[in-house]
Amino acid sequence: MDELKEKTAASRYVYHGKILKLREDQAQMPDGKIYDREVVEHPGGVGIALEDEDGKFFFVTQWRYAQKTVTLEYPAGKREPGEDDLHTAQREIIEETGYEGTDWKYLGLIYPTPAYDTETIGMYYAKKGKFIGQNLDEDEAINLSKLSLDEITDKIVKGEVHDSKTIAMTFLVKEKKEKGIL
Amino acid sequence: MDELKEKTAASRYVYHGKILKLREDQAQMPDGKIYDREVVEHPGGVGIALEDEDGKFFFVTQWRYAQKTVTLEYPAGKREPGEDDLHTAQREIIEETGYEGTDWKYLGLIYPTPAYDTETIGMYYAKKGKFIGQNLDEDEAINLSKLSLDEITDKIVKGEVHDSKTIAMTFLVKEKKEKGIL
Repeated sequence: MDELKEKTAASRYVYHGKILKLREDQAQMPDGKIYDREVVEHPGGVGIALEDEDGKFFFVTQWRYAQKTVTLEYPAGKREPGEDDLHTAQREIIEETGYEGTDWKYLGLIYPTPAYDTETIGMYYAKKGKFIGQNLDEDEAINLSKLSLDEITDKIVKGEVHDSKTIAMTFLVKEKKEKGIL
Repeated sequence: MDELKEKTAASRYVYHGKILKLREDQAQMPDGKIYDREVVEHPGGVGIALEDEDGKFFFVTQWRYAQKTVTLEYPAGKREPGEDDLHTAQREIIEETGYEGTDWKYLGLIYPTPAYDTETIGMYYAKKGKFIGQNLDEDEAINLSKLSLDEITDKIVKGEVHDSKTIAMTFLVKEKKEKGIL
């Protein structure tokens, strides 16, 4: 790892937004040469694969502004400052589906776009618990649906699913179920 | 889709970098309300699952500056202006592995982080062709390795792989091979 490590030779913020920050850094390569690196800072978040008693998972269809289209995704949300991922997941699953999760299992952590963005997404599996009621953010409009693992796999293979965490989570749920660790 | 669509009510660039741009937009929700949206513009790129004659795939280990760590990923690279994804993939696979690809197949398109970033990644499968020789960008240092589908799956399930496109591509290659469409 040391022979690949880039050190930070200089760093300055060029943008402070409500959600994003942007830095212009200078990275020193292992051979000593200096190159510019633009880095987006994002608080990151979580995704939740919530399974009901019939083996169906909850999905959210929502407008994704940057991509100018709707996407089909597992319920997900951003970390609040100081919040650990499991707590974010337990909060978001109620906000988006109305249901509590039980039997929480950690699926893993992804870097959606590791070269220039600090975002990480903690991925969880849970079983459907008590109904509490949805509580969406005021700038959030979503449609809920339910699909089996085979149905979401089919949509991914057909090219109907583009959200990276949703594909990663489906793979992890499938593999861990097949190996008996979920 | 129309009942979820957000229109752009206002848009201005607040940052122009070498690779990234950043916009502050105002999005009009279906109910007419206006909310702020910060949008990163990125040229996007491709990832390539290159399989050799023994069923092993090429992988790249490299320092990912924003995540301050090394990652294990399929070979990948950014689009040049005006370049189509297949051409980017055919160029990048030689640059990173030294080998030409043959029998190119499209795997799909992902949005790594669809809420606030325009990046898309076109994913391809190819078989190993002629050796031409590596040609890395000057700010790029990578280690090459080869793994079977079972070996990369194992690493993903163990939580040793964090790059979202690498997990998505492994899933797509596996599923398409199982269905006989790859």
